[in-house]
Amino acid sequence: MTTIAILAGDGIGPEVTAQARRVLEALDLDLTFEDALVGGAAYFAAGHPLPPETLDVAKRADAILFGAVGDPRCDALERRFRPEQAILGLRAALGLFANLRPATLFPGLEDASALRPEVAREIDMVILRELNGDVYFGEKGFRTAANGTREGYDVMSYNEAEVRRIAVVGFEMAKRRKNKLCSVDKANVLETSQLWRDVVVELSADYPEVALTHMYVDNAAMQLVRNPGQFDVIVTGNLFGDILSDQASMCAGSIGMLPSASLSAWSGANGLYEPIHGSAPDIAGQGKANPCAAILSAAMLLRHSLNQEEAALKIEAAVSAALVAGARTPDLGGTMTTSEMGDAVLAAL
Amino acid sequence: MTTIAILAGDGIGPEVTAQARRVLEALDLDLTFEDALVGGAAYFAAGHPLPPETLDVAKRADAILFGAVGDPRCDALERRFRPEQAILGLRAALGLFANLRPATLFPGLEDASALRPEVAREIDMVILRELNGDVYFGEKGFRTAANGTREGYDVMSYNEAEVRRIAVVGFEMAKRRKNKLCSVDKANVLETSQLWRDVVVELSADYPEVALTHMYVDNAAMQLVRNPGQFDVIVTGNLFGDILSDQASMCAGSIGMLPSASLSAWSGANGLYEPIHGSAPDIAGQGKANPCAAILSAAMLLRHSLNQEEAALKIEAAVSAALVAGARTPDLGGTMTTSEMGDAVLAAL
Ligand SMILES: CC(C)[C@H](C(=O)O)[C@@H](O)C(=O)O
Ligand SMILES: CC(C)[C@H](C(=O)O)[C@@H](O)C(=O)O
Repeated sequence: MTTIAILAGDGIGPEVTAQARRVLEALDLDLTFEDALVGGAAYFAAGHPLPPETLDVAKRADAILFGAVGDPRCDALERRFRPEQAILGLRAALGLFANLRPATLFPGLEDASALRPEVAREIDMVILRELNGDVYFGEKGFRTAANGTREGYDVMSYNEAEVRRIAVVGFEMAKRRKNKLCSVDKANVLETSQLWRDVVVELSADYPEVALTHMYVDNAAMQLVRNPGQFDVIVTGNLFGDILSDQASMCAGSIGMLPSASLSAWSGANGLYEPIHGSAPDIAGQGKANPCAAILSAAMLLRHSLNQEEAALKIEAAVSAALVAGARTPDLGGTMTTSEMGDAVLAAL
Repeated sequence: MTTIAILAGDGIGPEVTAQARRVLEALDLDLTFEDALVGGAAYFAAGHPLPPETLDVAKRADAILFGAVGDPRCDALERRFRPEQAILGLRAALGLFANLRPATLFPGLEDASALRPEVAREIDMVILRELNGDVYFGEKGFRTAANGTREGYDVMSYNEAEVRRIAVVGFEMAKRRKNKLCSVDKANVLETSQLWRDVVVELSADYPEVALTHMYVDNAAMQLVRNPGQFDVIVTGNLFGDILSDQASMCAGSIGMLPSASLSAWSGANGLYEPIHGSAPDIAGQGKANPCAAILSAAMLLRHSLNQEEAALKIEAAVSAALVAGARTPDLGGTMTTSEMGDAVLAAL
């Protein structure tokens, strides 16, 4: 029996996750679902954004379907109680070091991109973001200097093992795509990046068929606007990946369309799947959210954690067909509600 | 007597700086120019990318017109000998903590932006980047962990004095523009950002007329594509500013159009002015580079270091007029050479 943990979270998380679950249920795959609280919802109910019971449910499950976390009512809380700590905690506790963020423009959505249609149409890439290291997880804190001045600090670092395991995923993905891997760093300023680059170069000897390039992060941010079609697989660290993948999502149209997978191995169990959008408190509970990113995250779940490639392709085709038939939530310029969009995908399935 | 240090540097640096100098000379302002070597050019001639004589020239001058540094032949050198160290060294030695990067779309250049014309046309912002702190200047290095694994690290930090002095510039600029200041950080993950945010909020009490907002850097990278017209002044740290300002430049059309100023005080002497583009070794020496960014940097020099607002406006109007008249280098879809573009601006002056 296959168990999916549903961690719907805050804001629009529950609304979009409900539609993704409907789609999974419609496929008759004999899945069991187990709900658990996470984020602000868990903090208010149980005093912690990632309660031990939720972590247990997540660990036991074959895969996790995650909604979104974030609640403005938690802004003033101590850092460890804030909703965002739940997702950081899950990534760390489950060793989810590889974050896959495909960015593609669905046919018919050219008008949703801020880029010119001829530029946007070329986009077909995966941003592979390291998710367990970097300045996210280094020592951090406040200190007071000798002269009494307050200072905040965070240590950025990568070691060679961390770089190698994410770079392997990058090369393997590139092999299965267009054999192009672009490693993004800031090696002209950062030693962390210099090590990153050195390790990626060493590893490239094992992948002679993959064309490896290096790009500084400032240039990459520019090229993602100028000519995003040049990229196939981008591999980068946690912080740069956070920035570039959100940027790329907008080039590809609405952030409401893009799924992600967080994996602890190149292929294997216990992945976490979530839309890349946040909890969007401003539109929560109004049925305005686009459930496609959540539905497409469910497709990635089937592909990467359950080895159900066919079912994954079915879902992706259904989303595509619904869009071609004109289904649009407000972020895409339409008027459909969240559940109507879910209906449209189910109808196409 | 007013002295301008000319640090033309590598690649296309000398070509574009020569045109900017012609424009300054044409204004009859009784300026003296002093040339000095910097970057790869200085390394090959004098063994160091920022020789002491160059630093002297820069310190003595009333302002510095800088070209670009970067030379692929230096890639394998030890970090301290690489061309980039020259610009980092100048920023540190001269206390240039405030980097102003205006991003505007010149009329007629809508087609040069990858964004839809209606989105690009709205762009009129300044990105204010802190330039003396952050992960750029913290402790950094390599170390070997207990288990023998190589590790690279860089310490990110800001203290309250550093944040306050750049935030003051941000509020003052906003007051002179549309009274809108957006502070960009990653306070949901970084303590450095939390301190940044706390200090900016404290300072905002002194500027009740300025509408202050905060945005996470990943969201900012997305919003700069989605709706760049929403921004007036953005203030951010060194690393995030590096990424976002390059990204914004591309939204605004060619990177060949955008100047920058690096200042050690909100207004005052000893600023450094440079195009935001790099040395572009691939097109160096071919007369293909767009000199407008360098020419507009000269205008910023007149405005910020020499208090010659009128002359600055004259240059900016001349660039605008040349473009309206159809002058275009290859980056803008035209065929003019670097010096022909200089001629066109001079003719319009
Ligand atoms: C919520 C936040 C901590 C998180 C991150 O920065 O990783 C988010 O932006 C993301 O990209 O998943
Ligand atoms: C050359 C490099 C060190 C520099 C930086 O990162 O600051 C450049 O990208 C810039 O933006 O001026």
